[in-house]
Amino acid sequence: MIALNMANVMEEVIGEKGLTEKEIEDLRQKIKDALSQIKNRKWSELAFLDLPEQDTEKIKEIALDIKNQAENFLLLGIGGSALGPRAILDALSPFHNLRHKPRVFIYDNVDPGTLSSILSLIDLKKTFVNVITKSGSTAETAASFMILWEEMEKILGKESTKRFIATTDPEKGNLREIVKKYGLESLDIPPGVVGRYSVLSPVGLLTAEVIGVDCKELLKGAKDVRDRCVEEELWKNPALLMAAVLYLQGTKNRRTIDVIIPYADGLKSFSQWFCQLWAESLGKLGLGLTPYPSIGTTDQHSQLQLWMEGPEDKVVIFLRIEDYGTDIKIPIVFEDMEGLNYLSGHTLSELIKAEEEATELSLARASRPNLSLDIPCIDAYHLGQLFMFFEIVTALVGFLFGINPFNQPGVEEGKNFTYGMMGKKGFDKKRQEVEEAREKKLCWTVK
Amino acid sequence: MIALNMANVMEEVIGEKGLTEKEIEDLRQKIKDALSQIKNRKWSELAFLDLPEQDTEKIKEIALDIKNQAENFLLLGIGGSALGPRAILDALSPFHNLRHKPRVFIYDNVDPGTLSSILSLIDLKKTFVNVITKSGSTAETAASFMILWEEMEKILGKESTKRFIATTDPEKGNLREIVKKYGLESLDIPPGVVGRYSVLSPVGLLTAEVIGVDCKELLKGAKDVRDRCVEEELWKNPALLMAAVLYLQGTKNRRTIDVIIPYADGLKSFSQWFCQLWAESLGKLGLGLTPYPSIGTTDQHSQLQLWMEGPEDKVVIFLRIEDYGTDIKIPIVFEDMEGLNYLSGHTLSELIKAEEEATELSLARASRPNLSLDIPCIDAYHLGQLFMFFEIVTALVGFLFGINPFNQPGVEEGKNFTYGMMGKKGFDKKRQEVEEAREKKLCWTVK
Repeated sequence: MIALNMANVMEEVIGEKGLTEKEIEDLRQKIKDALSQIKNRKWSELAFLDLPEQDTEKIKEIALDIKNQAENFLLLGIGGSALGPRAILDALSPFHNLRHKPRVFIYDNVDPGTLSSILSLIDLKKTFVNVITKSGSTAETAASFMILWEEMEKILGKESTKRFIATTDPEKGNLREIVKKYGLESLDIPPGVVGRYSVLSPVGLLTAEVIGVDCKELLKGAKDVRDRCVEEELWKNPALLMAAVLYLQGTKNRRTIDVIIPYADGLKSFSQWFCQLWAESLGKLGLGLTPYPSIGTTDQHSQLQLWMEGPEDKVVIFLRIEDYGTDIKIPIVFEDMEGLNYLSGHTLSELIKAEEEATELSLARASRPNLSLDIPCIDAYHLGQLFMFFEIVTALVGFLFGINPFNQPGVEEGKNFTYGMMGKKGFDKKRQEVEEAREKKLCWTVK
Repeated sequence: MIALNMANVMEEVIGEKGLTEKEIEDLRQKIKDALSQIKNRKWSELAFLDLPEQDTEKIKEIALDIKNQAENFLLLGIGGSALGPRAILDALSPFHNLRHKPRVFIYDNVDPGTLSSILSLIDLKKTFVNVITKSGSTAETAASFMILWEEMEKILGKESTKRFIATTDPEKGNLREIVKKYGLESLDIPPGVVGRYSVLSPVGLLTAEVIGVDCKELLKGAKDVRDRCVEEELWKNPALLMAAVLYLQGTKNRRTIDVIIPYADGLKSFSQWFCQLWAESLGKLGLGLTPYPSIGTTDQHSQLQLWMEGPEDKVVIFLRIEDYGTDIKIPIVFEDMEGLNYLSGHTLSELIKAEEEATELSLARASRPNLSLDIPCIDAYHLGQLFMFFEIVTALVGFLFGINPFNQPGVEEGKNFTYGMMGKKGFDKKRQEVEEAREKKLCWTVK
């Protein structure tokens, strides 16, 4: 089980910039309310909590089909529809496309260069396409889906429809209509499950199975963490404590940036996944906390200076790996060089763990709050734990702020301007607004 | 030439959260001083400004040798030694390892899993190793270098030394000593050039040439921008204006997070490169600005909600691409679906550009300051411009803050704790401190 260590946010350890036990105790009633919202499923969007119990048979069947037939698996989706699958891919099958078939391509943008590259790399005859959009009309996903629809048809004719798997709402939306009309294979995203909380739904699980990961292991880890995190006693529940600490540091102490730094290359995409979850769930009403994606040891040589001596606006969350599953010894060479020979005889995992601990401690010494999650190893079971743990913590922090952690009203305006420029019916006025703004901007351009 | 548009930071456009011309004018004397430090090379570390004039013959020779002989090019380095080369690789040769030889692997961590994967993927007999460390004793780079040194020797015997290219200080340090002792091929990092400002030195240029990029094009772009940015007239100099705007928003308006969002997948690593430059240069004395790496359109579905409605602590910097070099038309399919058919007939580059503009405007309408850099296309020449432009802006902002933008005193303490744990001579006390802290931490662990 993952373990939380919070010594380095406490006043006792880092001095007056830290929190006291009393400050956390004073939050007890608010935390209790937040937890009861979780336990009583007060919001329909808490449906993500029940994903561990889903039936995975159809996912496994489709994946087996793909594994048997495909050389390439192309995922079309954006936001949670891509970040979750990519987090699974990169954590559990690093360098996948240089080592395994089917190769996995995740196209989560509308950059024409990227799609051109992908199309030049894959043989569409041997490709399956997983199009993921809950609403069924996400512009970016729709655009790439229509392009692939035509390209596949050119090459495979009527057979092409057998190569699409649509992951979408069970009832509503354009994509569901297309599924019905053309008889596409499909998987359901449960109605209550919001994009950024959907990694443990078919959104993430199909990719997991395609790359050879038993999705039940992900769900088992998620279940165990979920059951652990309904513990009522504050001081025994890591999710409650983490939510309380980040909330207090963010409000009382104005530390509104939460850096996440896993000490493992494979969790780089997990950080990105977390950043969407945190940013989109909590950033509203002028409130919220800004997540920052980072990676250890690499970013000690990029960001650490700022965390140590820059503005006092951050809490750093370390993800510490106990067992890397493999190790390499640093040999005895250059014996006469004192600047190097101290490393000889140690292993890489000794070094990376020492650096993680050293960074925690040096931040603490500079009175910069930080906490760590200790993870036994990176496998499907523990990755499932991490997903569910952070989802629960995010919802809890939202409830502490009094924010709805499941909507994203702030992105609508941008969509409307895009509709205007793309000539969607009813958005003419928005197009005019863009054109007016464009003229004004010209006065402020410097070449 | 790249162009700056700053309408959306001005009061005239976004209301009282914006800046007035007078506020910028009032900074004139400080800006003049900052520019004169640049022009007069007041700091030896401003040597990066003169990299466009370097002799590239040796770089080209070595690269040609590698291209002719190698199947794999393995780069060992961390921080600027890896971020610069990776920014070049990803911008100018996307999906490189699936398309071209030599494949390029950049190992910039001490994660044993990653190195094991790389070693399982490459045939060392057909591999060249570029080890990059200015000081010659960076722990992470030294560790992986020693491992590769032994592995290569096992396979190639004495010939193995011919496969290493050391990029380091011309005179000093352990790596330079090794170069001399074993007769390794080497390239010099000019003494004044600091890691995060080194991308246009042999640090980045060797990788550029190895992947088939003419490094002179990068330097030409850098030169043109540099010569453009010494313009004395504030309102005609994009570097001065950008520095002034970000400094004022960061100080007067407490907008201390600078988000960079290129609308191109290929510039994702460029964002990472920028983030090191900005964070490590400016984060000191309790001051500084926090960079945030992002990518469009992808992060509209991840971060935009936070930028629109979260705390008012950000300025968003858009990188807008005029010509993507390729394009794909969205075909006419699903004609009866209003939710999708408005996209048909447009191209992906129309869509991505519309979304960029829509996002700028929706932020401006919410009084959230943002500015944009317009880039004609992504090629070596314009990438060189971007590198030099952001380096100059970073130095200028440092001078405005009264900060030394070239040192990183805050990372030393962490190194000392690592030395202690790894048993380096003279650091016993540090090891003890770690052990004491470890015991204290145990009281605050929750499983």
